[in-house]
Amino acid sequence: MKKITSGVCAPKGFMAGGIRCGIKPGSQKNDLSLIYSNEFCSAAAMFTENKVKAASVLVSQENIANGKLRAVIANSGNANACTGKQGLDAARRMANLIADELSIAPSEVAVASTGVIGVQLPIEKIEKNISALKTSLRSDEAGHSAALEAIMTTDTRKKDIAVEIEIDGKPVRIGAMAKGSGMIHPNMATMLGFITTDAAITPYALDLSLRCAVKKSFNRLTVDGDTSTNDMVVIMANGKAQNKPVIGHYGLGIGDTGSYLKDKDFNVFNEALEYVCVELTRMMARDGEGATKLVTVTVSGSGSEEKAELLAKSVASSSLVKAACFGADANWGRVLCAMGYAGADFDPSKVSVSFKSRAGEIQVCSEGQTVPFSEEKAKEILSQEEIEILILLSEGSHKATVWGCDLTYDYVKINGDYRS
Amino acid sequence: MKKITSGVCAPKGFMAGGIRCGIKPGSQKNDLSLIYSNEFCSAAAMFTENKVKAASVLVSQENIANGKLRAVIANSGNANACTGKQGLDAARRMANLIADELSIAPSEVAVASTGVIGVQLPIEKIEKNISALKTSLRSDEAGHSAALEAIMTTDTRKKDIAVEIEIDGKPVRIGAMAKGSGMIHPNMATMLGFITTDAAITPYALDLSLRCAVKKSFNRLTVDGDTSTNDMVVIMANGKAQNKPVIGHYGLGIGDTGSYLKDKDFNVFNEALEYVCVELTRMMARDGEGATKLVTVTVSGSGSEEKAELLAKSVASSSLVKAACFGADANWGRVLCAMGYAGADFDPSKVSVSFKSRAGEIQVCSEGQTVPFSEEKAKEILSQEEIEILILLSEGSHKATVWGCDLTYDYVKINGDYRS
Repeated sequence: MKKITSGVCAPKGFMAGGIRCGIKPGSQKNDLSLIYSNEFCSAAAMFTENKVKAASVLVSQENIANGKLRAVIANSGNANACTGKQGLDAARRMANLIADELSIAPSEVAVASTGVIGVQLPIEKIEKNISALKTSLRSDEAGHSAALEAIMTTDTRKKDIAVEIEIDGKPVRIGAMAKGSGMIHPNMATMLGFITTDAAITPYALDLSLRCAVKKSFNRLTVDGDTSTNDMVVIMANGKAQNKPVIGHYGLGIGDTGSYLKDKDFNVFNEALEYVCVELTRMMARDGEGATKLVTVTVSGSGSEEKAELLAKSVASSSLVKAACFGADANWGRVLCAMGYAGADFDPSKVSVSFKSRAGEIQVCSEGQTVPFSEEKAKEILSQEEIEILILLSEGSHKATVWGCDLTYDYVKINGDYRS
Repeated sequence: MKKITSGVCAPKGFMAGGIRCGIKPGSQKNDLSLIYSNEFCSAAAMFTENKVKAASVLVSQENIANGKLRAVIANSGNANACTGKQGLDAARRMANLIADELSIAPSEVAVASTGVIGVQLPIEKIEKNISALKTSLRSDEAGHSAALEAIMTTDTRKKDIAVEIEIDGKPVRIGAMAKGSGMIHPNMATMLGFITTDAAITPYALDLSLRCAVKKSFNRLTVDGDTSTNDMVVIMANGKAQNKPVIGHYGLGIGDTGSYLKDKDFNVFNEALEYVCVELTRMMARDGEGATKLVTVTVSGSGSEEKAELLAKSVASSSLVKAACFGADANWGRVLCAMGYAGADFDPSKVSVSFKSRAGEIQVCSEGQTVPFSEEKAKEILSQEEIEILILLSEGSHKATVWGCDLTYDYVKINGDYRS
């Protein structure tokens, strides 16, 4: 697997573009985005689990149902959520408008929105600019960048990646972009992720692989505990790499990827997709609203992966742990405390905790109790931009990693008055 | 019911005191607290649900088992949590030391601790000062205040209350103190609550009444989503009011208080205890770490009280809602969003939301959608120190109220470096 450039435009046959249509008043940035494949695609998607779903989510859920898509249209500046029938009509209209321009079926379009909730989407601005959006399509890095800019909200960094692998002797590429920095919490909170690949792969295998990858990446990301109304991850595969189609064995569910060892091609694709999703996840955690640090929490030695995940999420979500990370304070008692209310069964007297970063590693808790350690060294370790909290349960061999960030003054500032 | 003074010393036969024994280095405040009844007491208590329990919690759970207590000893500056066998020995020693001084049984003592986790309790400091602690006992307001100061940590305000009611023609008093401002979340996070009453009441009725009251007060309080290792609420009733003992009907559980209508005395006591607990809860929410506002969330028109509580807690706990309250931003979409991930079943298209304070009331959402409203007026309403978020589900007649606070720069500041 090697890293390559051009994001969603890296795989053969994909184009992307973005323009400014004025949904974000007062901004000079793009706010309308398009990704398009000139061939038919297998497609898969996952959506927010929030009971309150944006109109765009509802429309995209309808359109993905048959496992086929050729385009994703997305806007920032308006979430089109809590907007009732009028909002639903606007989301459908968004799909229809771009489908007409591209001469494809409206059911081949996924629609995504991000921004403020409860304000009607100014669909007339999109209508007026729809042909300019099509014209902006390019198959290079610039097309990718224009599309990516148009989905960003409070993001301060671009999140994208592309990799190349080999399947069936053919080079296969996966490209991706994501947005998301606040309101991020399992499962799948305000984030949009758009992934393209030229792999030949069945809708079934693509869906399975996406679920496996999201489970171990985006669904293990937490910024502020809020799960948004708008999240979605979409992947489209157009087969232009001309490998023998990746099928996957029918009948195995998520988490059973170990059973796919016989299906080498699936495993190669799956591993690359997981890598892409984990890298995007790390970028989002690092860019959590107001965050100064990427905080990685790994629970190992667990009796099950589920338990490890539950405990790691509780630690990464704790406001007190997050504030301690901001202050570079080795307050490991808060780590144990957060594990204690996770709702998981474990023996506190067997827990060890260490902090780690490029400045070193230090154990602060052994068998549930304090151990002597240098506060100075711990402070140095926790002052780095990427820190790890390593927790050992000593009861089994399973583990899980969760990504989060610190809680800072700027988080409060950004969210105290996001709308104005 | 009338409000009276002197807190836990208001009921007949109770004394309280507090001294500085040096557990909090560099502080001039009291850090060791005692409440004592010169008569035998019925007693009841509730404890943290955190899997990681402080040594003081474990010892108090043992001692309350027979429904009798006569004293509560508490320290601040050290939580005596994650301290293993040495910590457990220290907590037991704390009970033994004061029991010897007071000539009562160690099993008649509840032990409480609050402060930093993972550091051994300096029990020798308590030992050296134990007779001074006994000497500090007084039956007046000053005794109450000295005891209360000694349990405060990051609290910026004193939380106490006392009321007088009439049972069986006799005046009966309930007095209380509490500490808690951070790490507070259902159920029963870092808070200590000590309640005294001179009512004659059986341990069974006292326990039932405490559970009913805590369910509708402390367990509906959220500051930062962290549930501590150390919380407890203890109530002692010494019977000196000489009313006919309040019994309560055997066999009815929590939440069935409606069935107690026949037992008028129980209901009078129960109502007063709930009032005391709710008032303390409001004081704690108002004094949430760094908080500038008390935020009350009420969900009504619900099919069940449980659902109303679940939804209200999700809204009051949302970092985004809390930050919007800080910024006086009428971002009601975040309210709906937080309801959406609460895990409760409801119809978003039937939800109405209003904001209310002493500056007025304004509806911002009707039937799940935006309604035209004055942003200026909303800002004025949300700029008050006490604000209410009123949510109507339009599906039934049940309701629940939850108390929280805003998320501010100071929360981050306080928790970024609490230990130093």
